[in-house]
Amino acid sequence: MGSKTPFLHNFYPGPSQVHADLGQWIQEGLEQQIAGINHRSLWFMEMYEEIRQLFRANHHLPEGYEVLFVSSATEVWEILSQSWVRKHATHFVQGAFGKKWAEVAQKLGNQVEVIPVSHDSVPAIERLRIQTATELLALTHTETSHGLSLPNSFFESVRQKYPQIPIAIDATSAMGGVQMPWHLADFWYASVQKCWGLAAGLGILIVSPKIIDEVKSRKQNTFYNSLYNLLINSSKNQTTHTPNVLNIYLLKKVLETQGDIRQVEQKILKRADRLRISIEEAEGLSLLSPNAKLQSPTVFCVRSQDSTMWKSRALSQGILLGEGYSGLKNNTFRIANFPAISDESMKVLLRFLST
Amino acid sequence: MGSKTPFLHNFYPGPSQVHADLGQWIQEGLEQQIAGINHRSLWFMEMYEEIRQLFRANHHLPEGYEVLFVSSATEVWEILSQSWVRKHATHFVQGAFGKKWAEVAQKLGNQVEVIPVSHDSVPAIERLRIQTATELLALTHTETSHGLSLPNSFFESVRQKYPQIPIAIDATSAMGGVQMPWHLADFWYASVQKCWGLAAGLGILIVSPKIIDEVKSRKQNTFYNSLYNLLINSSKNQTTHTPNVLNIYLLKKVLETQGDIRQVEQKILKRADRLRISIEEAEGLSLLSPNAKLQSPTVFCVRSQDSTMWKSRALSQGILLGEGYSGLKNNTFRIANFPAISDESMKVLLRFLST
Repeated sequence: MGSKTPFLHNFYPGPSQVHADLGQWIQEGLEQQIAGINHRSLWFMEMYEEIRQLFRANHHLPEGYEVLFVSSATEVWEILSQSWVRKHATHFVQGAFGKKWAEVAQKLGNQVEVIPVSHDSVPAIERLRIQTATELLALTHTETSHGLSLPNSFFESVRQKYPQIPIAIDATSAMGGVQMPWHLADFWYASVQKCWGLAAGLGILIVSPKIIDEVKSRKQNTFYNSLYNLLINSSKNQTTHTPNVLNIYLLKKVLETQGDIRQVEQKILKRADRLRISIEEAEGLSLLSPNAKLQSPTVFCVRSQDSTMWKSRALSQGILLGEGYSGLKNNTFRIANFPAISDESMKVLLRFLST
Repeated sequence: MGSKTPFLHNFYPGPSQVHADLGQWIQEGLEQQIAGINHRSLWFMEMYEEIRQLFRANHHLPEGYEVLFVSSATEVWEILSQSWVRKHATHFVQGAFGKKWAEVAQKLGNQVEVIPVSHDSVPAIERLRIQTATELLALTHTETSHGLSLPNSFFESVRQKYPQIPIAIDATSAMGGVQMPWHLADFWYASVQKCWGLAAGLGILIVSPKIIDEVKSRKQNTFYNSLYNLLINSSKNQTTHTPNVLNIYLLKKVLETQGDIRQVEQKILKRADRLRISIEEAEGLSLLSPNAKLQSPTVFCVRSQDSTMWKSRALSQGILLGEGYSGLKNNTFRIANFPAISDESMKVLLRFLST
């Protein structure tokens, strides 16, 4: 595999830099034979419960919210459309991933109303007109393709204006890096290859007590990954299929090691500030959004007329920058500011941007 | 996690004993930063192609058959029902997993005809009456719950009698351990935590050229994991979602290290013979099927009036036996004879069974 260019500092926004201790954790796990352990065993069930408690203790997940394990964030799109929405869904679309989510829902038969979200300003809640028949407001916390985040105050105003409508939030590139305002939504989902600093192959779906009650009363179990099946299994600390046990174990290690998410967030926000300033000061670079309120602290999308030159110059110094996504490939590049990226790597990047 | 009993010799039929070199392969992979590498990168695409070629060279997969990566064998049940079968499917059911597969298909709206397969004899092909309108014959190579395999001669006679009907074969506990007669079916699937000796979290689906042509002409892409989407992506050496890249890399290592499957099979069959004799000679133990032709070489289901005693006595000697599955829990236990189980472990087990 000679075409794999070696790099030391990985700023790709997913799959991303993995946690520095990953190798050691895996060795410890293998010594405990966890890779070959049965997912119906007491050991697995205890680990599931430990992870749930770590989410409560370190990520302040409210009592009653449940943690579910799926294969990917992409699978969550399908799960929500197949086993929550029966007719109408309202999708706020700010970039490529929000758009894909809406398309998946449409293909699966949901009647989808799309509300475009600009790159320049936070949507004005007073002007929003949402069909109250909708069964889901689909929002994106951090749009990985464009490096944009909606502020918590926006999620709060949506929740206040439409307290009856369930809300799903794509937190793929945010959960594990910054504190989620859990009570402001009913579904939260992420994959572990972003802020969690793990290898790809595991999705996390978190659901509110309101959803759990409703799903349990509907008892719809058409699909192996129906929410009902996921919840019936999780209530016994089990899963609907043989899951990625090794990654679940590694997720527990990250949760234990990182400690309180508020401290992780503090570090991420501080680094994001420095990174933003460096990008703004660099010759020929600018942020995709002119509005600092919309800049994600965990993913940066940087405009440049010469993004190819920037990427190859970076690579020659051992720095892997993320490609611009899809239509933005030629005039942007992206930078992840995920917890597993070391301060040392970040220093190298800041120095690179300033020269 | 104090309740995790340590064991040295893992005979659980999945998740199972992982390959002895797994830790070393992972370390090498981490050093090459494969855990954080992008699944759209050239590196990943080359690896996909290498795996395809290794299947052809070492597992004798015919030209034109394609290798697809999914999350689990369970997901394959859904894929086949959602994006291949439009109305009718015929399921041969020999045990718990075959039954589950048929149930998943029924829930997803397939009109399922179930043909029960006895534990005592190979089905008589001349007596089979299959609706020719059926779009899929669903067969199980190795029924993991009951330790039973159908012989290749049976698959051959089905293929001869119904050359027009596509055939899907569940090879979850066989592929990677013995040679698959690929040309006798159109869909083959497995998960990596059985004969491949890897940690769980990856499924392999193999499809025939006939299916590829038909799927590409139908262009049905309702589901993110529709066969059409899987094939369009695989034709570019890509996947429908961010896959378990680390496990895909490890699959490549197993394929490279094991070499020709015929040599692996030889070892497995030889050990299976010894194991069968030991079980038959052991006081109070017998094989579930009285018919040696139906005994799987990779999974053994052992009848015992005192299975709990056998399991706990084994565990006290560092040997983990598999639980009997579901309704067979109290009067059977299971033994895996997978390639990653060392000859030394097998010797320990044989000694244990003889005392």
